[in-house]
Amino acid sequence: MQRFALLGAGFIGSVHAKNLAENPDVTFAKVYDVSAERAAAIAELYGAVAVGSVAEALTDVDAVFIASSTNTHADNLRAAVDAGVAALCEKPIDLSLERAREVVAHAESKGARVMMNFNRRFDPDHAELKHIVDADGVGTVELVQMTARGPAVPALEYVKVSGGQMRDQTVHFFDLARWIAGADPVEVFAAGSALADQRLADPEYDDVDTSVCVLKMPDGALVQIDNNRRTGYGYDERIEVLGSTGLVESMRHRARRVTHYTAGQVVESQMYAGWFERMQPTYALALDHFVQLLETGAPIQPSLSDGLKAQAIAEAATKSLHTGVSEKIAY
Amino acid sequence: MQRFALLGAGFIGSVHAKNLAENPDVTFAKVYDVSAERAAAIAELYGAVAVGSVAEALTDVDAVFIASSTNTHADNLRAAVDAGVAALCEKPIDLSLERAREVVAHAESKGARVMMNFNRRFDPDHAELKHIVDADGVGTVELVQMTARGPAVPALEYVKVSGGQMRDQTVHFFDLARWIAGADPVEVFAAGSALADQRLADPEYDDVDTSVCVLKMPDGALVQIDNNRRTGYGYDERIEVLGSTGLVESMRHRARRVTHYTAGQVVESQMYAGWFERMQPTYALALDHFVQLLETGAPIQPSLSDGLKAQAIAEAATKSLHTGVSEKIAY
Amino acid sequence: MQRFALLGAGFIGSVHAKNLAENPDVTFAKVYDVSAERAAAIAELYGAVAVGSVAEALTDVDAVFIASSTNTHADNLRAAVDAGVAALCEKPIDLSLERAREVVAHAESKGARVMMNFNRRFDPDHAELKHIVDADGVGTVELVQMTARGPAVPALEYVKVSGGQMRDQTVHFFDLARWIAGADPVEVFAAGSALADQRLADPEYDDVDTSVCVLKMPDGALVQIDNNRRTGYGYDERIEVLGSTGLVESMRHRARRVTHYTAGQVVESQMYAGWFERMQPTYALALDHFVQLLETGAPIQPSLSDGLKAQAIAEAATKSLHTGVSEKIAY
Amino acid sequence: MQRFALLGAGFIGSVHAKNLAENPDVTFAKVYDVSAERAAAIAELYGAVAVGSVAEALTDVDAVFIASSTNTHADNLRAAVDAGVAALCEKPIDLSLERAREVVAHAESKGARVMMNFNRRFDPDHAELKHIVDADGVGTVELVQMTARGPAVPALEYVKVSGGQMRDQTVHFFDLARWIAGADPVEVFAAGSALADQRLADPEYDDVDTSVCVLKMPDGALVQIDNNRRTGYGYDERIEVLGSTGLVESMRHRARRVTHYTAGQVVESQMYAGWFERMQPTYALALDHFVQLLETGAPIQPSLSDGLKAQAIAEAATKSLHTGVSEKIAY
Repeated sequence: MQRFALLGAGFIGSVHAKNLAENPDVTFAKVYDVSAERAAAIAELYGAVAVGSVAEALTDVDAVFIASSTNTHADNLRAAVDAGVAALCEKPIDLSLERAREVVAHAESKGARVMMNFNRRFDPDHAELKHIVDADGVGTVELVQMTARGPAVPALEYVKVSGGQMRDQTVHFFDLARWIAGADPVEVFAAGSALADQRLADPEYDDVDTSVCVLKMPDGALVQIDNNRRTGYGYDERIEVLGSTGLVESMRHRARRVTHYTAGQVVESQMYAGWFERMQPTYALALDHFVQLLETGAPIQPSLSDGLKAQAIAEAATKSLHTGVSEKIAY
Repeated sequence: MQRFALLGAGFIGSVHAKNLAENPDVTFAKVYDVSAERAAAIAELYGAVAVGSVAEALTDVDAVFIASSTNTHADNLRAAVDAGVAALCEKPIDLSLERAREVVAHAESKGARVMMNFNRRFDPDHAELKHIVDADGVGTVELVQMTARGPAVPALEYVKVSGGQMRDQTVHFFDLARWIAGADPVEVFAAGSALADQRLADPEYDDVDTSVCVLKMPDGALVQIDNNRRTGYGYDERIEVLGSTGLVESMRHRARRVTHYTAGQVVESQMYAGWFERMQPTYALALDHFVQLLETGAPIQPSLSDGLKAQAIAEAATKSLHTGVSEKIAY
Repeated sequence: MQRFALLGAGFIGSVHAKNLAENPDVTFAKVYDVSAERAAAIAELYGAVAVGSVAEALTDVDAVFIASSTNTHADNLRAAVDAGVAALCEKPIDLSLERAREVVAHAESKGARVMMNFNRRFDPDHAELKHIVDADGVGTVELVQMTARGPAVPALEYVKVSGGQMRDQTVHFFDLARWIAGADPVEVFAAGSALADQRLADPEYDDVDTSVCVLKMPDGALVQIDNNRRTGYGYDERIEVLGSTGLVESMRHRARRVTHYTAGQVVESQMYAGWFERMQPTYALALDHFVQLLETGAPIQPSLSDGLKAQAIAEAATKSLHTGVSEKIAY
Repeated sequence: MQRFALLGAGFIGSVHAKNLAENPDVTFAKVYDVSAERAAAIAELYGAVAVGSVAEALTDVDAVFIASSTNTHADNLRAAVDAGVAALCEKPIDLSLERAREVVAHAESKGARVMMNFNRRFDPDHAELKHIVDADGVGTVELVQMTARGPAVPALEYVKVSGGQMRDQTVHFFDLARWIAGADPVEVFAAGSALADQRLADPEYDDVDTSVCVLKMPDGALVQIDNNRRTGYGYDERIEVLGSTGLVESMRHRARRVTHYTAGQVVESQMYAGWFERMQPTYALALDHFVQLLETGAPIQPSLSDGLKAQAIAEAATKSLHTGVSEKIAY
């Protein structure tokens, strides 16, 4: 049984709170948020205690779930490390890659047990795809194709602090690329446009909402990622891995399995509305994985190093968006 | 908030216990089982109180979930009715249709609020199919086809007390047939064989494991149901409704959405292992529906009368298995 | 190279004419029709000779394709047998089962080489299904389910001389049932209604347009067939075979493989418009099969006996429609 | 009725010969090949006349099908233009873009009627996708994704004279990109590796077998193409078009529609073996389109200009493979 504190009681924090409460191997002990009111509401709902500071949250617990706002991740992580508390940390470690590297170096010097919450690795379909790849089901990986397209451009205030599409959305797939291919890409090319909301092209945001990335792996394998912020038809995510002997695909999801045949058309169930509806089950699975790692003492994956590397790719991809050149990635 | 007692802490009782504990509008207060040990285990897991009798369970609660063994359903239902407690009752009401009619008459005379737990009506895909039918998506219903096939013949001791395939397995689809078509079938033909386990043909069991039923509706529409107890490939359930203007299908489910292409074959994810893996989510949905009916006072559906009618069809179908004649159904 | 005559230059005759002309192992020599004009048109299109009588057509050819109107099949077949010409014969042999038996007995006494044109056996998907069954891909066949639904009730004049739905439409699937299961059904139950066109129920037609049949095989295996004359969504045909170790399905066809995702719905390509659009390629394949049998001297399949047996099942099914009893089949 | 000559009686020439012979609006009059023997064989098979020179072939015909070896396309095209004969020309016009431009300029100055045989535009699924895009089914095109992967690296002698993967394989999709998006890309980035056959990386071939291209359209829309020469699972081609309001996909094809369910896996029919099995029907459709254009006098599409533009993109893509920079395209 692991005693957990939760930092952050916003939208995603409340999702994690529910999972902490329902996980049979977790005692959801404490919750902290900059809004005492939000923390109290979560605490009452799940029988946890709302506390008044991060320090208090980190006292007398085994682990902390860092789901606070992005700009507090690094500080909260450092505090957890110094308190000797294991941590499950939402990405990114910090929007500044340099600052992220500092806190990771610190954590590693202390032997801290920290897992990056790259939840997509825990999607059962993606995990089955990975299992098939690892079981040599497609031979040597030669071409990976990933699509992630969301229904709506986020609020512009969010975009402004998000670090841009590469660091905010594509970073999940940079992580999946490394995970699936089992290697670190050496170069990345990115092209992008602001098509869904042209204001994103303004210098104030300097962002794109439709982009394509191409990663080159050390052995010449290629990874192709397309990202989009406004589909018109719901959330769309798929992965396919082409290897030397076959292909495996984790397909786009339709929310239901109902087909309606009428004159002139065959209508299938629609897609999930957004990434959350599609990906929600992965959060409980990721938490469960972390809890098992804590209970068994096994090496932590995805690690802080995984978090850093995905960010390093995002950094190079963001540069490539401007240069039009396939950029080397500096880990 | 509804205070619930649970009667029965066996396999399906423990499923309901978890759903009672997780439903935000339910207080899971008490649990009773003939095995005090089983009751105590469930009670501890979910913070309920294990009690020593049905009477005790029915004291000071709003509703009871009857998930005890089949032969106790009628008595427990009568007790709940007499105690003025609403009930959510597992099928069948009683294996004896006559006895079932008596207890239903009693419940109706008292104005009792009782829902039959026909959980398949709450499967989101089946419900979407029903929604499309009701929204005139296929015109007048003319032909319904239902398939339900399980991976393994149940234990012979279970078969012996189950009432036979029509009353045990097909009865769910007799209910669905009435629900989808919005009418009561007038005749039923059934043909069946003991192919998966030929011992079922022994007079001791007098049962079949592979069967086909054909129902005739008052307006001439036809319903076709095939049932099987041993598929070799997991659990397989599907429904299609052909109407005067179109077709709607609730498709067979594959557990995942992963496809694996290699030389000479394309492999999809396998089916769910059994009915439980496929249908488990329906139990929480059915409970939720019942709780909403209690909170709003809306008419109960599926009702005891629905339960009786499905049994009456099963009765006639069982007779047809022996006569080879399309039998009239006596409601 | 086989020299062919064609009897019948109507709709289906003209389809066969084209296939005769394009088959590299066939010389399409002659064509006869009661309408000299129609025969001449076909003859000109494909470089054949229009002749003035069946006798003339049967002179100096290796084989004859009997595609004339149903009431002439038996006479034409007898003429071919007597002329020593091999024949590919459209179903049925004759609407009168007795008369059909006579001509078959005659043909068999002469050792005539005659193939029934049960074209569905040559559909590549159905053939792959059969291949999987024969290769023990599903174990012992226990349950076969077949669906065949057409877009429109045929013209009433056609219905009047068609022999009814069992003899006209379902007979194809009676043949497939025998072919797939490798055995002759012993009983058949049929239920049907006139829902698409209620005039079919008039004594003048005494027919149904929506029906369900259940066949019982000697070993207890069951076959379920549903047929419908007006779908609202195009032509719909599928087969599934459940065996002791698995299932194989020849799926319903959509005409294209295009999917269109928009807000709220996912639209697939529509079905084929009718049976002809779906089944057209089978005619060339069936012809090719017949030509190969002629060239190699291999036993003919589907044989006249196959044709008789399918008719015998249709006979019993037609009776069951009226009696509501599972009827024994007299071969 | 159009009188045709065919230049080239190799593999693809023989495919075209059959289509010429079967097209009801074409008289297949003459065939020429550098091998008189091959020409004679084709001529005999289809009742055409084998001739001894291109000049002879171009006499007394309405149109010529140029299916000779790549290095003769430009000369044959010029000869047809000078003879006043319409032409249906296999791609490329010439491997040298400069030479191709010269012959196109000549043809255009003469008002010649020449169609590039970009057969994929005539695939019924791709055409339906295009139809949906044109009917505003997905709004403004924002992201196009195309996959084309073949089962086997071509013979090295072929690779050596093919111009490389961009000019030989990807060029089809450069054309489709322009066709679908209705605009000319301004930049192209390409990355590639020799993974299937590492000898392709030798300076002798200087080629790749696995590549990803990213095109940037004038309005910022992006097009992503991945190409591969050795899949291990057959031929794989798919297109999806994401627009401002939806998505349309022309899906990868399985050769059959049969599914086989057994313990632990669900097996679908395999893919087509190669591009030819998948794309063969497009050739007759493209020919038919050309014939209709000739009969009606409508403007020719795909035009020589379309051919030149696709080549220009391939030129820039080939450069990008070496520079790692997104290259401007010079039309």
